[in-house]
Amino acid sequence: MPELRKDPVSGRWVIISTERAKRPEDFQLPEEKKGSKDSCPFCEGHEDKTPPEVFCFRKSGTKADSPGWSVRVVPNKFPALTREGALSRRGSGIYDLMNGVGAHEVVIETPDHRKNMTDFSPKKMGQVISAYRGRIIDLKKDPRLKYILIFRNYGREAGTSLAHPHSQLVATPITPKRVKEELIGAKDYYLRKERCVFCDIIRQETESKERLIMGNKNFLAFAPFAARFPFESWIIPKRHSPDFETIKESEKDDLASILQATLKKISRALGNPPYNYILHTGPNRLNIPGYWQTLDFDYHWHIEIMPRVVRIAGFEWGSGFYINPMPPEEAAKFLRKLTV
Amino acid sequence: MPELRKDPVSGRWVIISTERAKRPEDFQLPEEKKGSKDSCPFCEGHEDKTPPEVFCFRKSGTKADSPGWSVRVVPNKFPALTREGALSRRGSGIYDLMNGVGAHEVVIETPDHRKNMTDFSPKKMGQVISAYRGRIIDLKKDPRLKYILIFRNYGREAGTSLAHPHSQLVATPITPKRVKEELIGAKDYYLRKERCVFCDIIRQETESKERLIMGNKNFLAFAPFAARFPFESWIIPKRHSPDFETIKESEKDDLASILQATLKKISRALGNPPYNYILHTGPNRLNIPGYWQTLDFDYHWHIEIMPRVVRIAGFEWGSGFYINPMPPEEAAKFLRKLTV
Repeated sequence: MPELRKDPVSGRWVIISTERAKRPEDFQLPEEKKGSKDSCPFCEGHEDKTPPEVFCFRKSGTKADSPGWSVRVVPNKFPALTREGALSRRGSGIYDLMNGVGAHEVVIETPDHRKNMTDFSPKKMGQVISAYRGRIIDLKKDPRLKYILIFRNYGREAGTSLAHPHSQLVATPITPKRVKEELIGAKDYYLRKERCVFCDIIRQETESKERLIMGNKNFLAFAPFAARFPFESWIIPKRHSPDFETIKESEKDDLASILQATLKKISRALGNPPYNYILHTGPNRLNIPGYWQTLDFDYHWHIEIMPRVVRIAGFEWGSGFYINPMPPEEAAKFLRKLTV
Repeated sequence: MPELRKDPVSGRWVIISTERAKRPEDFQLPEEKKGSKDSCPFCEGHEDKTPPEVFCFRKSGTKADSPGWSVRVVPNKFPALTREGALSRRGSGIYDLMNGVGAHEVVIETPDHRKNMTDFSPKKMGQVISAYRGRIIDLKKDPRLKYILIFRNYGREAGTSLAHPHSQLVATPITPKRVKEELIGAKDYYLRKERCVFCDIIRQETESKERLIMGNKNFLAFAPFAARFPFESWIIPKRHSPDFETIKESEKDDLASILQATLKKISRALGNPPYNYILHTGPNRLNIPGYWQTLDFDYHWHIEIMPRVVRIAGFEWGSGFYINPMPPEEAAKFLRKLTV
C-alpha cells in the first residue's frame, strides 16, 4: 500500500509508492513518444487494457468496457493512491504518516488517439466537463477523501506519458498544501472584508480590462496579476460558488467554450506549447473541518492554465518564488487580439 | 525596473520582469547546447563579457576582471532583481506590489568550461563554499534584503542555460514563501518542544540509520523521510546553527567533501542526472522582524539536493503535493553502498 508522509518542518505531505521499489536505472526522463494506436490502452477497442470504467458517456445499447463510448473514466492502472483500507494515521519517532488511501483516475476524453482538446466539438467539451462533475460528486460521498483535484497535462514537458487525450483526477485524504494556502488566504480576506477575494478580483479585472483575455455570459478568462508563468491564464465563473460541481447546465456550455477558446489562443500564440491546467475547487465538507475548511462565502472555484514555456529551476524549487519574464498585461493584450 | 507582485489569495510573491517585454515567439523551451568555449561569457579571458566581479579568488598580482582567477562572482547580466532604487511598496486596487530591488549574482566556479563539480579538487570545492559564505555576509549588510538564496542548476532539465559550471544567488526583499513555511514550521516545533526540529531529525536518522547516506565529523547526508523526488538528499551540519555563514574553517572542508561525495553517488546511481541544489539558511536579521523571523534556537541551515528524474506535472503544481515512486529508505540504501 502506498504511504503518505508528512515533512516534519514544512508540513508538506508526500505520497511514497512503496509498492514498486524501483532500481535507479529505471529513473531516466522519458523520451517523447507519440505512441501508436495499436499499443495505446486508451483507444477504442482496448477497453480491456484498463481497469473497469467508473463513469462513461456511451451509445445506448453498448455494454460497459466495450467500444461505443465518447468519454470514459477509469481508475489509473498504476494508482498513486488506492481506495481500499483504512487511513491508519500513525507516528514513527518524530515523523507522521498514514496509508495511501485515495483515488487516482483517468478521464479518457475521446476514443480518437490523435485528436487535440482544441479540436473537440462543443458537445464533446461539455461531456468532459460533465465527467469531471460526475466524478467529484461521486467521490465526495467518501468521507475519507478531503480533496479531489482534477488536472490535465498536455505535452511531454508538462508531464504526459501517454499522448492519447486525457485528464486525471487524484482524491486525497488530506487537503493539499497549495490548496490549503488558497483556502486560508481566501478565508482571511473574507474575515477582514466580508467579501470574497475572487469576486473582488473579477470586479477589478472587469473594470481595468488590462488583463482580460475574453469573457462570456457566465465566465471570465484573464491573466492573473501575479502570474507565475508567461501566458498563465485563469478561468473563473462570474457567479460566486466554492464548488465546481454546483455548475448549472446552462453554465457548462459557457465553460466548455471559454476553456477551449483560451486553450486555442494559447496554442496559437505559443505554437502548441505543453501546458498543465488544474481545477481548484472547494474541499469535501463531509469530513472533520480544519481552519482551512471553506465557508460558502469565502472560496470561489476556478481553473488555472499554466503553459510550460520556461523551465522551473532551483530558485523556484528552493523559494516558491517565481520569475516571470512576461508581464501579464502584455500576455493578455496579445491573447485578447487573437481570433480563434 | 522589475516588479514584485503579490498574489492576493495565496500571498505568493512573483517577480515580473517588466523591462524586457517579449514577443510570444520568444518563449520556446531552449534546446540543449553544450556551448563552446569561444562564446562562453564565463570562460577565462572573457571577463569583459560579464559585469565587474564582486568577489574573487585569484592569483596574487592579477588584476580584477582579468584572467588568473579560480572562482569568480559577478552580477547576472540579465538580473531578475536589481540593487538600485527604493522598495516603494504600494497598492493597485486590491493588489500589492513593490519595486524589484534585490540582487542576482552568478558564482562562476571554475575557469574550465568542461569541468564537472564532481571533478573539482577539495581546494576548489572549499573555495566555492567560501564564495557562497562571502557573498551572504556582504549582502546581509543591506537591510532591504530579507533573504539570500543560493542554488545550483545542473543540466538542461534542471534549468541551466549555460553549461559552464556555476551556481546562482538571488537576494530578495521579502522572505520567499517556501522558506517562510520552513521557518514557521521550525519555530512552531520549537515553541511546542523547546527543541530544534532539525536536531531531532539528525538524532532520529543517526539512530535508525535506514535513511543515512553518509556522514563525517561535522555533517550528515541522508534521504529525508518525506522525500519529494527519487534520490532527494539533504546535507546538514551536526552543529546547530541557523546561519550558513557561521560555518567554521574546519567545518568547511567537511562540507565540501560530503557535498561532492553525495553528488558523485547520485551521478553514479542515476547516470549523471540533471539536478538542483538549494541552500536553506536563516533570513537576514537586520530588517523588521516578522513572525517567521528565526530565533537562534529554532532553525538549522541545510542543503537540499533534488535530482530531476521525474517530471513535475499538473498534480504537483496544483496541489504542492508530490508523488515519489522511490522510497527514501531504498534510495539511501543504494547510495550508501556506492563507493566514490
